[in-house]
Amino acid sequence: MKDQHAHLYEQQIDSTQMFDGKLLEVRLDRVRLPDGSEATREYVVHQGAVVVIPLLDSGELIFERQYRYPLQRTLLELPAGKIDPGEEILQTAKRELLEETGYRADEWRYLGVMHPCVGYSNERIEIFLARGLQLDAGGQQLDHGELLDVFNLSLDDAVQAVRDGEITDAKTITTLFWAEKVLRCGW
Amino acid sequence: MKDQHAHLYEQQIDSTQMFDGKLLEVRLDRVRLPDGSEATREYVVHQGAVVVIPLLDSGELIFERQYRYPLQRTLLELPAGKIDPGEEILQTAKRELLEETGYRADEWRYLGVMHPCVGYSNERIEIFLARGLQLDAGGQQLDHGELLDVFNLSLDDAVQAVRDGEITDAKTITTLFWAEKVLRCGW
Repeated sequence: MKDQHAHLYEQQIDSTQMFDGKLLEVRLDRVRLPDGSEATREYVVHQGAVVVIPLLDSGELIFERQYRYPLQRTLLELPAGKIDPGEEILQTAKRELLEETGYRADEWRYLGVMHPCVGYSNERIEIFLARGLQLDAGGQQLDHGELLDVFNLSLDDAVQAVRDGEITDAKTITTLFWAEKVLRCGW
Repeated sequence: MKDQHAHLYEQQIDSTQMFDGKLLEVRLDRVRLPDGSEATREYVVHQGAVVVIPLLDSGELIFERQYRYPLQRTLLELPAGKIDPGEEILQTAKRELLEETGYRADEWRYLGVMHPCVGYSNERIEIFLARGLQLDAGGQQLDHGELLDVFNLSLDDAVQAVRDGEITDAKTITTLFWAEKVLRCGW
């Protein structure tokens, strides 16, 4: 690909699968650097995910507390989940909101995309704002091994929780600040 | 650990290293879920990183454009890098700022921590604001295989670049919005 940033590009020489788990695929590629030398790149192959910021008519936002095993602790997060193969991202957003919180939304707005882990994963996270929320009769429909507490926070309290270090999940901070721009700055 | 969130906790049964690369260590653990059943958890073990938002006396911020192989494209990012074993995080921040941009800073402020990838990595990223910047005589001192373009953006232009989808790196968006709170909202 020849463009103004072509002097930064790395070319794949070969690619080897190093781990193929239920969740993670890890690959090790040999690459040609722009200066002609060789290097290796190790990375996770990910199917992508969505995050939803659900805004209740009361003005409060729906959050979750979930145990995150890699960090050996619980974290405060917005509802999120992986895109199933072939699934439209809006469908993923609707599915995850319903499964994790029990809510359906009348109004969906796509905000944008983020890359959470650019050094060693190809994951992208698509960001949605959901409004016009109504509790579904079926309630939460969690996957096996998925357990989480759902609760509401005002936008101000959530932003304060970032400042206080109570919210540290990057996708949640990014989405929260983004939604604040939408709701208060006309984005 | 018995606390108010103990009903969410997962207990390790055993842990197996599945990949041990130059960059990534991947582990597969068997865990006991709160309901007594078993599950597996796959995750990356990471030494942690820092991100720096460097504010020039002119009011502009220093950004980088770097090729990110997992995404097969270049991204706009703030200076960042991994914590060396035993290294103080402030020292990492100073080292990475100097190596990647050629600048030293007189004033350092710690903003907080984020977790970029809570589902499958224990990585934390410590956030610093650097002011009182002076170009070092030695200039950029990049590692082998590291190549990046450095340039300046105003805070307003950087925030606009998030809105326009030109900045998608989650650590950069989080840090930029956080710094905006510090510089404009008295955080």
